[in-house]
Amino acid sequence: MDFYGMGESTEPATFQRPQLAPELVVSRWFNTDEPLTLASLRGRVVVIEAFQMLCPGCVAHGLPQAVRIQQTFAAADVVVIGLHTVFEHHEAMTPTALEAFLYEYRIRFPVAVDMPSEASAIPQTMAAYAMQGTPTMILIDRQGRLRAQHFGEVSDLRLGAEIMASTI
Amino acid sequence: MDFYGMGESTEPATFQRPQLAPELVVSRWFNTDEPLTLASLRGRVVVIEAFQMLCPGCVAHGLPQAVRIQQTFAAADVVVIGLHTVFEHHEAMTPTALEAFLYEYRIRFPVAVDMPSEASAIPQTMAAYAMQGTPTMILIDRQGRLRAQHFGEVSDLRLGAEIMASTI
Amino acid sequence: MDFYGMGESTEPATFQRPQLAPELVVSRWFNTDEPLTLASLRGRVVVIEAFQMLCPGCVAHGLPQAVRIQQTFAAADVVVIGLHTVFEHHEAMTPTALEAFLYEYRIRFPVAVDMPSEASAIPQTMAAYAMQGTPTMILIDRQGRLRAQHFGEVSDLRLGAEIMASTI
Amino acid sequence: MDFYGMGESTEPATFQRPQLAPELVVSRWFNTDEPLTLASLRGRVVVIEAFQMLCPGCVAHGLPQAVRIQQTFAAADVVVIGLHTVFEHHEAMTPTALEAFLYEYRIRFPVAVDMPSEASAIPQTMAAYAMQGTPTMILIDRQGRLRAQHFGEVSDLRLGAEIMASTI
Repeated sequence: MDFYGMGESTEPATFQRPQLAPELVVSRWFNTDEPLTLASLRGRVVVIEAFQMLCPGCVAHGLPQAVRIQQTFAAADVVVIGLHTVFEHHEAMTPTALEAFLYEYRIRFPVAVDMPSEASAIPQTMAAYAMQGTPTMILIDRQGRLRAQHFGEVSDLRLGAEIMASTI
Repeated sequence: MDFYGMGESTEPATFQRPQLAPELVVSRWFNTDEPLTLASLRGRVVVIEAFQMLCPGCVAHGLPQAVRIQQTFAAADVVVIGLHTVFEHHEAMTPTALEAFLYEYRIRFPVAVDMPSEASAIPQTMAAYAMQGTPTMILIDRQGRLRAQHFGEVSDLRLGAEIMASTI
Repeated sequence: MDFYGMGESTEPATFQRPQLAPELVVSRWFNTDEPLTLASLRGRVVVIEAFQMLCPGCVAHGLPQAVRIQQTFAAADVVVIGLHTVFEHHEAMTPTALEAFLYEYRIRFPVAVDMPSEASAIPQTMAAYAMQGTPTMILIDRQGRLRAQHFGEVSDLRLGAEIMASTI
Repeated sequence: MDFYGMGESTEPATFQRPQLAPELVVSRWFNTDEPLTLASLRGRVVVIEAFQMLCPGCVAHGLPQAVRIQQTFAAADVVVIGLHTVFEHHEAMTPTALEAFLYEYRIRFPVAVDMPSEASAIPQTMAAYAMQGTPTMILIDRQGRLRAQHFGEVSDLRLGAEIMASTI
């Protein structure tokens, strides 16, 4: 099925010919007793909301949308994960600050802190996916393949359709 | 795929075991040169937004959602149709009034006037689908089978997923 | 007190040197047992929301704002009146249709039908105030003088300030 | 003029018989070349938005409302000031984090960091005004008297009216 153009979203070549999504590289997890891996989530669709706690578009749009996804789809089918990809204001968006943020905004799904890079301001998972900024919404299908990657706002209608397409 | 409970939406038995959707019974069309039938639209998903022009929930939620659907999905895959199912205030919601309404609200997709019944305030298509009121959103798959019927508000996320599921 | 520019709003000369507001010319009232006149409301601020029932901006913005005004200010200080100024689609926006509209949209404040003109599509009160279209929000002070007239959207902050200024 | 009840807002005794507002006690200023004092702003209405950068109600409602106030009223009449009253998560909401927040959220009006207290988690200005939490909106009239203090959301209509009343 085709969609009409969506200015801000980007579709990597992998969308047409999906390839295995790169594994998450994580320095710390919140809201989960043990670390998660994409490999261990095989069989379910994985929705990754890459955000920064001081990014207005993430707070106003991306994170509420991730919460709606978690509330709409059954956990047996769709897993929602937050990924804190800090690439600016590193001194302000520490894990300590993130913990307070998740508490105040009542984010209950697992949130990973993207592993900082020694060589760059861009953390490692963000680099592996070639993300352009935040918020970025990533869809991975039941087979672990990257199916969609949207930078900026994407509509709920389109996202709902893409999530369903990823379950098949 | 399962969804979590959605208070206001209703799922007919046909959703589990979809049956052929009843044909539209129409007294007049707007925004189309020739009458449409479900039979002639076979091969595409059909989204029917049943509304009344003086129904606040239709004006605030149902119709804008139908417009978003039309803007999101390719016309070759998904057809959006409005159905004016007048079951109250018949003297106020005449075809003449509807024509002015469609013009002012810039509704561009085809809109059918549901055929009045001689025996009841409920028009004929509304009765055939056993609709409970307006707005009601109906999804019909490529094979012409009724896949979902929602009375009241339904989220874009869920609707996007259901539309995609109906294309398969 | 000065305001920063508000694109769509218009300020008649009467705002700087307020003059007596023209009396309403009305063919029919809803939501009141007896006809109202500006003269009889002297001593209170009068807020007039001029609208058409099929005007999207009136339904989405103007009328909800009028309801908020009624809910915010004490009735002893501020009176809210709707004025149905039909200047197009006359055959669709009849008093019968308006009655159904007011019922469905739960408009409880008094609503006047602006008296049609024999010579023009513009009804008589609309002409007397030289309104440019709908929605138009009119503020009349305790002395019956026209203090502000806004065509299109005006912010609640500014309107709140102007209502307070009209009470003095 | 009376207002109808507004659940969340609180009106100190000073509203009926306004008294001089306590002076701000500030550890650091942002967005201003030199420190401000209420005394130096005498002659203008002062609107103080007391907030915490990780308070969702402040980010979604209080701060955007403060921006609208700044955009609506002339600077010669009304001054808007932010006051960062950190009373929880002190380790997350440092001045360094606040600086990044103000940059990302494009807050351009002067923002004061409320002076921490040695004896309490509540900073000093917050204590002097007996604020109950954040967001709190404070209105001070041209004579420097406290005219209104609202904890939680307050409508733009009411706030616009109160700001105008404070100018007189």
